[in-house]
Amino acid sequence: MIHDLTDEEARAALPLKWETPGVVPAWVAEMDYRQAEPITEALVDAVRRGALGYPPHGDDLGAAYAGFAARHWGWEVAPEASVPTGGVMSGIRLALEVLCPPGPVVVPLPCYPPFRDVVEVTGREVVPVTLDPDSDEAVLDLAAVSRAFASGARTLLLCNPHNPLGQVPSREELAAVAALAREYDARVVSDEIHAPLVLPGATFTPYLAVDERAIVVTSPSKTFNMPATHGAQLVLPDPADRERLAAVPIPAQNTWSILGVIAGTAAWRDCDDWLAALRQRLSAQRELLTELVADRLPKARMRPLQATYLAWLDLRGYAVADPAAAALAHGVRVAPGHDYQPDLEGHVRVNIATTPERLEQIVDRLALGVRP
Amino acid sequence: MIHDLTDEEARAALPLKWETPGVVPAWVAEMDYRQAEPITEALVDAVRRGALGYPPHGDDLGAAYAGFAARHWGWEVAPEASVPTGGVMSGIRLALEVLCPPGPVVVPLPCYPPFRDVVEVTGREVVPVTLDPDSDEAVLDLAAVSRAFASGARTLLLCNPHNPLGQVPSREELAAVAALAREYDARVVSDEIHAPLVLPGATFTPYLAVDERAIVVTSPSKTFNMPATHGAQLVLPDPADRERLAAVPIPAQNTWSILGVIAGTAAWRDCDDWLAALRQRLSAQRELLTELVADRLPKARMRPLQATYLAWLDLRGYAVADPAAAALAHGVRVAPGHDYQPDLEGHVRVNIATTPERLEQIVDRLALGVRP
Ligand SMILES: Cc1ncc(COP(=O)(O)O)c(C=O)c1O
Ligand SMILES: Cc1ncc(COP(=O)(O)O)c(C=O)c1O
Repeated sequence: MIHDLTDEEARAALPLKWETPGVVPAWVAEMDYRQAEPITEALVDAVRRGALGYPPHGDDLGAAYAGFAARHWGWEVAPEASVPTGGVMSGIRLALEVLCPPGPVVVPLPCYPPFRDVVEVTGREVVPVTLDPDSDEAVLDLAAVSRAFASGARTLLLCNPHNPLGQVPSREELAAVAALAREYDARVVSDEIHAPLVLPGATFTPYLAVDERAIVVTSPSKTFNMPATHGAQLVLPDPADRERLAAVPIPAQNTWSILGVIAGTAAWRDCDDWLAALRQRLSAQRELLTELVADRLPKARMRPLQATYLAWLDLRGYAVADPAAAALAHGVRVAPGHDYQPDLEGHVRVNIATTPERLEQIVDRLALGVRP
Repeated sequence: MIHDLTDEEARAALPLKWETPGVVPAWVAEMDYRQAEPITEALVDAVRRGALGYPPHGDDLGAAYAGFAARHWGWEVAPEASVPTGGVMSGIRLALEVLCPPGPVVVPLPCYPPFRDVVEVTGREVVPVTLDPDSDEAVLDLAAVSRAFASGARTLLLCNPHNPLGQVPSREELAAVAALAREYDARVVSDEIHAPLVLPGATFTPYLAVDERAIVVTSPSKTFNMPATHGAQLVLPDPADRERLAAVPIPAQNTWSILGVIAGTAAWRDCDDWLAALRQRLSAQRELLTELVADRLPKARMRPLQATYLAWLDLRGYAVADPAAAALAHGVRVAPGHDYQPDLEGHVRVNIATTPERLEQIVDRLALGVRP
């Protein structure tokens, strides 16, 4: 069910990820798999019918998302809570500008780099809450969040599940965050783009299930490998939020595409089988990675990969400040840890959504780069 | 070569334009024609190959646009001057925020409504320069522009060719604007999305041909009926402008889609025949409209439709303040003039990019609405 792209196919289909000839790419978050058939067919049909115009006022995206949430997470969300938007980051920008109280924004580090940028773009201050790379678990430092709220921050930008840590916050962890937010009348923006990519062994909790004052921003684009369709959703249970958003002028809206609505509806509604196969594949890749790392990078420490296809490796045992640069010299591109947490040395993020053969090459080349 | 969508096809393909059953839609700027075959084939191929990821760092869009500009306008532009972006309005926002001097922005009225919004979104003041609806020609009031520059405005937002007036500024008119801009060290942002839609009898002048300090924002999305592909271009001859733009963080970029690049490249490069057929069709529709208006709306005054498929009708002779509302009650939706120029009474914008039969219905129903 999962169609692996050959090198040639991948170079043509994913020109950014595969831009450097001779380099095995394990950096940007794209999978070397073709999207699910129902998405292909929905898009081809749309193109052939000439459905390339403006998106409609009403659509089935919210209902499809609600169906997905009920089937996969046992969580009920109103179809009308979903407001389409053009992308997750621009959706977070809108949420900050239009729906969040003024004041500094707490950003847990490491983070997906645009998290810091988006806060700055809205003219607000980033209050980092940084994970100690030596801590056993990747849970949020609630005392630090509390201090940040106490000194004026009024928004927390959560990544649930977490990129780049691959961590799935427990319901208890999220409930504690929610209690803090309530205490300080702060608002949580939860980026849940990786939610369907929770792997066997972990359980996803939609943040809205513990805090209905929150704002979720999500998209099927990551799970279903289709950022080109420019579709994402703000999930806003409060009608007042939806009204405030609807009043934003068009040039600030980062308008979504009808192709995003069509592909997204197919993704949330018709692709459970493909998603099950994908999770199985990613789970096998995770196992392979664990073995390969134990074998070829014995001094590496890997965060448990509970979700996403992005593994977080601590390579400080090899005493190479920038292992990504060292690995690139040996023909593999992984993402440097300092992109996610400035000044963090010795870490990399590795994209495992590829073939077993390429994953072995990735670890081999990484090992060549960092081992003495 | 032009495939007319049936009512049923149009309702499915263009759900926004056709949203109200029983109403003939002549409001939003979408054409009731299917896109050109080379675009369909390029998109279907991309989808089937799984090219739904991130856009590449380099692409052929700038070269394809340069080829189009040379063939159609005899104008040379460097391929590297084109910087892809996700949409025209968000491209104008970026231009204002990143590339234009601070200070008020001159916006000629009537205008495409998001022109006023985009200025406000960037926190700048709109200085309107309003066309007298009784003036014989729809040329820009240069004395008013000069006064606006003299009192501090430093940017002019041009629509070349003009929506909603359908006017194509002459080279002399544009050169006079350029001279003023130079005098005051002001910058012109020229929206040229309608440039390929200049109809027989008029000649398009790229604004950059008379003022190389300007910024052009354009897209094949209007001419080739495909806003869903989320592709547009800033045309920036000055490398310093391109560098400033490249430094903008991702969440402010309104990232373009690889589908926009693929479809846009096909549009600029492979669709000349289709475009020639489209222009012929629109020219015939224009002729038909002129006859129909003379016959059924004899007191109407129509601006010469030199470009676009959007006709600007002055219906003040019928003494109906809001003719669009009156017409809607009779089953046709046209765009009200006051959307383009607040407080302007008795005007409408009529979309003629449909079948001759529908155009006749449109004018008939409009006449029913406004004639006593
Ligand atoms: C946590 C997270 N948010 C957002 C995005 C990107 O979303 P978009 O391209 O829709 O802005 C990514 C992409 O990898 C991501 O990992
Ligand atoms: C003058 C003008 N600019 C821009 C646009 C829309 O461009 P976009 O949807 O790429 O922002 C239109 C759409 O009709 C238009 O007429």
